[in-house]
Amino acid sequence: MAYGYNGKILRVDLSGEEISVDESNEIFYRRYVGGRGLALYYLLKELKPGTDPLGPDNLLIFATSVLTGAPLQGTSRFSVAAKSPLTGTYGEAEAGGHWGPELKFAGYDAVIIKGKAKKPVYLWIHDGEVEIRDAGKIWGKPTKEAQEGIREELGDNRIRIAQIGPAGEKLVRYGCVINELRHANGRGGMGAVMGSKNLKAIAVRGTKRIDIKEPDKVRALAKWFNENYLKNADVSGLHSLGTPQFVLPLNASGALPTRNFRDGAIEGAEGISGERMKETLHVGQTACYACSVACKMTVKVDEPFKVDPAYGAPEYEGVASLGSCCGVTDLKAVVKANEICNAYGMDSISTGVSIAFAMECFENGILTEKDTGRIDLRFGNGDALVKVTEMIAKREGLGDVLAEGVKWAAERIGGGAERFAMHVKGKEIPMHEGRWKTGVGLGYAVSPTGADHVQMEHDPCFEEEGFFIDQLKPIGILEPVKSLDLGPRKVRLFTYLQHWWSLGNCLDICLFTTAPARVWKIPQVAEMVNAVTGWDTTVWELMKVGERATTMARAFNVREGFTMRDDWLPERFFQPLEAGALKGTKLSKEAYGQAIAAYYQMMGWDETGVPTKAKLEELDVGWVADKLEK
Amino acid sequence: MAYGYNGKILRVDLSGEEISVDESNEIFYRRYVGGRGLALYYLLKELKPGTDPLGPDNLLIFATSVLTGAPLQGTSRFSVAAKSPLTGTYGEAEAGGHWGPELKFAGYDAVIIKGKAKKPVYLWIHDGEVEIRDAGKIWGKPTKEAQEGIREELGDNRIRIAQIGPAGEKLVRYGCVINELRHANGRGGMGAVMGSKNLKAIAVRGTKRIDIKEPDKVRALAKWFNENYLKNADVSGLHSLGTPQFVLPLNASGALPTRNFRDGAIEGAEGISGERMKETLHVGQTACYACSVACKMTVKVDEPFKVDPAYGAPEYEGVASLGSCCGVTDLKAVVKANEICNAYGMDSISTGVSIAFAMECFENGILTEKDTGRIDLRFGNGDALVKVTEMIAKREGLGDVLAEGVKWAAERIGGGAERFAMHVKGKEIPMHEGRWKTGVGLGYAVSPTGADHVQMEHDPCFEEEGFFIDQLKPIGILEPVKSLDLGPRKVRLFTYLQHWWSLGNCLDICLFTTAPARVWKIPQVAEMVNAVTGWDTTVWELMKVGERATTMARAFNVREGFTMRDDWLPERFFQPLEAGALKGTKLSKEAYGQAIAAYYQMMGWDETGVPTKAKLEELDVGWVADKLEK
Repeated sequence: MAYGYNGKILRVDLSGEEISVDESNEIFYRRYVGGRGLALYYLLKELKPGTDPLGPDNLLIFATSVLTGAPLQGTSRFSVAAKSPLTGTYGEAEAGGHWGPELKFAGYDAVIIKGKAKKPVYLWIHDGEVEIRDAGKIWGKPTKEAQEGIREELGDNRIRIAQIGPAGEKLVRYGCVINELRHANGRGGMGAVMGSKNLKAIAVRGTKRIDIKEPDKVRALAKWFNENYLKNADVSGLHSLGTPQFVLPLNASGALPTRNFRDGAIEGAEGISGERMKETLHVGQTACYACSVACKMTVKVDEPFKVDPAYGAPEYEGVASLGSCCGVTDLKAVVKANEICNAYGMDSISTGVSIAFAMECFENGILTEKDTGRIDLRFGNGDALVKVTEMIAKREGLGDVLAEGVKWAAERIGGGAERFAMHVKGKEIPMHEGRWKTGVGLGYAVSPTGADHVQMEHDPCFEEEGFFIDQLKPIGILEPVKSLDLGPRKVRLFTYLQHWWSLGNCLDICLFTTAPARVWKIPQVAEMVNAVTGWDTTVWELMKVGERATTMARAFNVREGFTMRDDWLPERFFQPLEAGALKGTKLSKEAYGQAIAAYYQMMGWDETGVPTKAKLEELDVGWVADKLEK
Repeated sequence: MAYGYNGKILRVDLSGEEISVDESNEIFYRRYVGGRGLALYYLLKELKPGTDPLGPDNLLIFATSVLTGAPLQGTSRFSVAAKSPLTGTYGEAEAGGHWGPELKFAGYDAVIIKGKAKKPVYLWIHDGEVEIRDAGKIWGKPTKEAQEGIREELGDNRIRIAQIGPAGEKLVRYGCVINELRHANGRGGMGAVMGSKNLKAIAVRGTKRIDIKEPDKVRALAKWFNENYLKNADVSGLHSLGTPQFVLPLNASGALPTRNFRDGAIEGAEGISGERMKETLHVGQTACYACSVACKMTVKVDEPFKVDPAYGAPEYEGVASLGSCCGVTDLKAVVKANEICNAYGMDSISTGVSIAFAMECFENGILTEKDTGRIDLRFGNGDALVKVTEMIAKREGLGDVLAEGVKWAAERIGGGAERFAMHVKGKEIPMHEGRWKTGVGLGYAVSPTGADHVQMEHDPCFEEEGFFIDQLKPIGILEPVKSLDLGPRKVRLFTYLQHWWSLGNCLDICLFTTAPARVWKIPQVAEMVNAVTGWDTTVWELMKVGERATTMARAFNVREGFTMRDDWLPERFFQPLEAGALKGTKLSKEAYGQAIAAYYQMMGWDETGVPTKAKLEELDVGWVADKLEK
């Protein structure tokens, strides 16, 4: 008997309407664990290099882990992965909520979708049964209507639905997958891949629970979490304000991305703060499966826009990308733009950064009112923000250009626009200032999915006072490293934390609940895995799972033609911040180049960033070397 | 308050009779842990490259770990380290008994000796006090008389004494350090270094115990061990027969080094078996501090030789090196030769292999009776074995040549003798057949101390049936690897186990009690460290301690001029075994070269085997790179 996993991976070929099941054993689950690891196993084994991300041959993978669905805080998540249509690299995004656990309860650990349906369909997975159903009635509908439509059709309000919106249908390159209208597998265009397959949604319902080897230990761990989580200031803040709690402290530090990363602080930041949102628009908050933090806010607005509380509220990432990054401090406009993202199924980060890009082009005369359809697209214009968000979702006018992402949009627009395109490998940079958090900046450059905020730990700048150092000692980080440092000790810290968060994306655990900065300690994660599965895993084995997945993702990208030249940051990060407490701060290209070279070596890759055969063999995936050689 | 360690390292400069103490903190002890790690820290920081191993500038380091002296089975050991006079590499050897715990009880974690006393002295360390005392009366004396002399002079029979014998005084290059006449820091000539400093002994006595953070957890672990150790067949065998239990099974497998590694089995192996020793000569057995295995045998012989039971009995290594490797199956002769090694303070492995070398030279006419002083030095001559052992100890006649070790002896003898010199980097090969246990063979080649049997785990040939695979899963070895395999999966297994056993030599724990093949499981070792120290270490942090120490040792050797060309095995291993069940088995040079290249890559070293700067930085010892650059 297997504990923690079903051992069943559902395979659906939409072209031929074929359904099958892969069965896997303990060795597979220990080596890949789930999420990112599981997805890369299949992508490297089955996807041919050069596959069109929006063609039928791309694989779209929904994957949970051996922890997903355990009654433990922070283990509710799942990954969606495919070759990304935004970047051409390995693409992956995670989301919380209840969908991942529900898939496990329905009898499957993952769903792998191939092919393209002849007409719009959705999948209905319930207690081991699988149906491919007609989605004609809900195609083109915003996510709320689609969700209601499916639940009505199937006659069960407890069905959990991961779906795309009209943006994904229209192949907006950063179309997302969204579940319960508010939990987004946001980044890299997984929704566009789903749209390209004519797949509107995956509805799941399961009535069994996962088998747990040591229920008493799991209960004891969950109890410990509940007794301790509010002692962590960050998590206590999440409990009361959600992620927008970070707006004001970051603004004060001078590290709140503002006006397309030109500045590090914005006047009137209070207007888009977590505190203001809570005081003025907040009508409730929800939790992911089994979690007590309940960091998901719900807001409602009646005028001048109507914002439906069904769509939740923006996270910090949305507040900053649609707010400060666009120079906007009108909270209602930000909240409305975020609602459009959730209703139409678009990544709020890429949306915000694409609009900020357009705004800076507009301010510099590269775009004019002729291009914008008479919209005065200056930084700070909240009405313009809302309008352009909708135009992107519908691929109307300038929105059709911005729907390609800033890299491709800059090429289309020309006139030097690329200097305002804040992306790495085509993916828009999230709301963490790489000039301050130099480790995150390094992560943007080398992340296998392009610039991303959950592909690595945020910089332990919080360590300035050594505050979290005790949480890092279990992986051998014994002394604090300064935030602005970019020397070898920072690269080491980054590399170890990248292993750790790559594991996090294999285990699909939540970084708001987990060390180093948060509640679960690093050794406790191993305890959680062992209590659920009955294994005797260790932090060594788990860190190697993370390193393995990062290196497999790197191999995927190498095979797709990416080279060390793609591991670089936008020029702006090498220019000084123009406003805020960090005014004048910039990265040194020389130091950056050295850091990247040191990173390659610490990863056991060659000097051009290609994983060596021996390294792949050390990571127990020698077969990947064969994939690279072909 | 520190738990597990005193935080005090005693420094003694014998030239100036200066005594001082280094105080160190938790970060130091977590990074280096003790034993090998601690020794390498000082050797790399303070020893100039090119230092004469037998000159006053060599450092001689006696080091315990944070576990030594805890009431836990298998934690009684300590390391002695210096630049080796046998190899010119980093030199290190470990021993059990009671001396290591007693040093901790006396208030010090390590003793670092420099300089050379003007006349023979010994150190007397008792409850924090240190004296340099005259050793005139005991210099030149066998170890038993010296031990009695010191105990008498100081008036305390419970004093623990680590000392050299006349062989160390005469700078036999494989002179050892021995405590309680039967526990040897055997390999690499640490006794010769001690002799070169005119230091006869270190006598220690302490009345305090180490502070333990969680005594209840330590007690529970010790109880668990006692309830489980006899379930392990190997350990049960150690309990009844000691290490000589391995003679018959290895002979049956065809992997008992015989006649200078020409053959893999010997007729009449029963004569030197553990069973025979137990039946005929056994008069008792003893245990190391806090251990229930009690694997140390005691034998007594009255005729034709007198063997004093005070000197214990040969281990498997001694039985095979002085026995089968010399073609000798006369147990009494083997036991007598071993007693001479303990009384005169010589490594029984190097002694046996040196004599086997001389025997093969004799059989091939390279040495004659003129050279041997009329001794008929044929394989199998037990009387000759005893005589030549004594000649080496006294540096008489041919013994004076063999006292240099086989590498240098072969150069002196000439006539093609080097083809019979079974060594790596000048250190004689121990009693494990590298053609069968290919991982051990690889370990001989790349071990930083030259061919050694406790620098890496013995090959998991026992894994042939997958029997121990569950013990290896915690470090991510999920599937068995065959003994004769030398492909990448074997190199990976070896590399991980080398980290693990390098950690073992930092923690100074006993491989007879510890996983993978034995009782303590890998995660339990982390539990032991945490229960004793109060840390929250993990197997990741501990494996990295091991890897760090291996790489520091590599850096030491690189700095001394060693290159990849020194990482090779004697030609004989590439020739077929001539007798036994493995007759015809040999290593392939091509496969071996590939394995070594893969090993370098898995270690993060460059293609010539030099640790990269980034790797050293990843291991948190960037300062070692500066030492390499100079």
